[in-house]
Amino acid sequence: MLVCATFDRSNASKIQLREKPIPSPIQIVPLTGLPEVAPGDDLAGLLVEAVRRQRLVLKPGNIFVVAQKVVSKAEGRIVPLDSIQPSERAERWAALYQKDPRMIEIVLREASSVVRMERGVLIVRTHHGFVCANAGVDISNVPAGTASLLPENPDRSASTLQEQLQRAFGVHLAVIVSDTFGRAWREGLVNVALGVAGMAPLVDYRGQRDIHGKILRATVIALADELAAASGLVMGKLNQVPAAVLQGVPLPQGSGRGRDLIRPAEKDLFR
Amino acid sequence: MLVCATFDRSNASKIQLREKPIPSPIQIVPLTGLPEVAPGDDLAGLLVEAVRRQRLVLKPGNIFVVAQKVVSKAEGRIVPLDSIQPSERAERWAALYQKDPRMIEIVLREASSVVRMERGVLIVRTHHGFVCANAGVDISNVPAGTASLLPENPDRSASTLQEQLQRAFGVHLAVIVSDTFGRAWREGLVNVALGVAGMAPLVDYRGQRDIHGKILRATVIALADELAAASGLVMGKLNQVPAAVLQGVPLPQGSGRGRDLIRPAEKDLFR
Repeated sequence: MLVCATFDRSNASKIQLREKPIPSPIQIVPLTGLPEVAPGDDLAGLLVEAVRRQRLVLKPGNIFVVAQKVVSKAEGRIVPLDSIQPSERAERWAALYQKDPRMIEIVLREASSVVRMERGVLIVRTHHGFVCANAGVDISNVPAGTASLLPENPDRSASTLQEQLQRAFGVHLAVIVSDTFGRAWREGLVNVALGVAGMAPLVDYRGQRDIHGKILRATVIALADELAAASGLVMGKLNQVPAAVLQGVPLPQGSGRGRDLIRPAEKDLFR
Repeated sequence: MLVCATFDRSNASKIQLREKPIPSPIQIVPLTGLPEVAPGDDLAGLLVEAVRRQRLVLKPGNIFVVAQKVVSKAEGRIVPLDSIQPSERAERWAALYQKDPRMIEIVLREASSVVRMERGVLIVRTHHGFVCANAGVDISNVPAGTASLLPENPDRSASTLQEQLQRAFGVHLAVIVSDTFGRAWREGLVNVALGVAGMAPLVDYRGQRDIHGKILRATVIALADELAAASGLVMGKLNQVPAAVLQGVPLPQGSGRGRDLIRPAEKDLFR
């Protein structure tokens, strides 16, 4: 249960932590009916229209999760494959695994380092610091002959949307820009948070006491990633639902950015 | 958007995929008021009571996500630390990082291999195949002087609960047994699915076409992990909410187990 008070350690007494009000349900509302988004489109405006069309009443602390793909499209982060001259390295690797060398070239350009490049799988660290397959470069749900890149700065994308959405609705809102990433050791993709605005992406339980009075030592929850994953349940992969609104999530105090979810080099055991 | 029909390729026509009905919202309902669970307790019975107390009306396809901790407690997977004689290896490593050597010993016993053992962090592959910190062994929210282990077979735990809950409510239900795991490269923990019953843990979009008619090649979504993460939004870490019910999630046809979410050795680049 996320009770706002429990995250403000200066205010939270043990008594507050022991109280057990029944927490309210959380709602994940899909936003639908957006037109195909193109470079320069007013994405916030399209989201506002969708909210109004669905007669959704927004409350303070509601969270928009917006798929990276529509953000990238609106920001013009679409590359025509024809414009790409593959390097020798890209050509060689692409030939080995029957890939498009232009795609490999784009991925390598988006990468600050290659984490794994074997068995036809290309996992890199992006310039932002995200570790993911193909640097998030993708040819699905974009026009033929093009590829989409991750937003240049997903935190900035989230902030811009947050500002525009707050202006339209007049309440405090949080925004997450999300994408589906694979994971080490586990099958399947899950939606994760790339950019975050208007909320704390991590919730720190360390120092709080469990029901037996024991102090929690290692519990920091990736709230923004859990929110992104939850929105993945309505967003799907066929592009019909590029955004969702989460209602009833008590947001902890504080704020932060999507980049706070990237494990810093000195703590990372899997470089 | 998860439309049931889209997952049954034999029935799904392109026309069905192009239709855009507004998907309904998903609800995440916390289950509260469970007493402290002890070995031998009827966990399904306690969940049934909680559902009735909250006047929650269950529908076919509703999903229970139950925290590993209460499952382990009910199944007696609690070890008194006093009963453990640490090995020399456990003693040595514990001394290096000021850890309890008995805890380290339990972790090593629960592990089939050690993935990382450095800087005070012990990441292992459990006998089930999960890669996680401390083999899921935990001293929070259990009586002093004891540690909880992961269920012996989380899929079996999920199946047993599913059978009992279905008998009580008379509708088809799915059950996920979840725990919070860390991830490579990203900060914070997220709730993931260990055991699954009554649903397909993975949704395979490969072979379907996107809005531009392009065939999706690499998209398999870890639905059970997204459901577990979503329930993490209400479950928290202070033990007040050991379970959640997710309503309105259109489950794809088919079924599978939590172990399907474990990447097989031959596909795993991070062994």
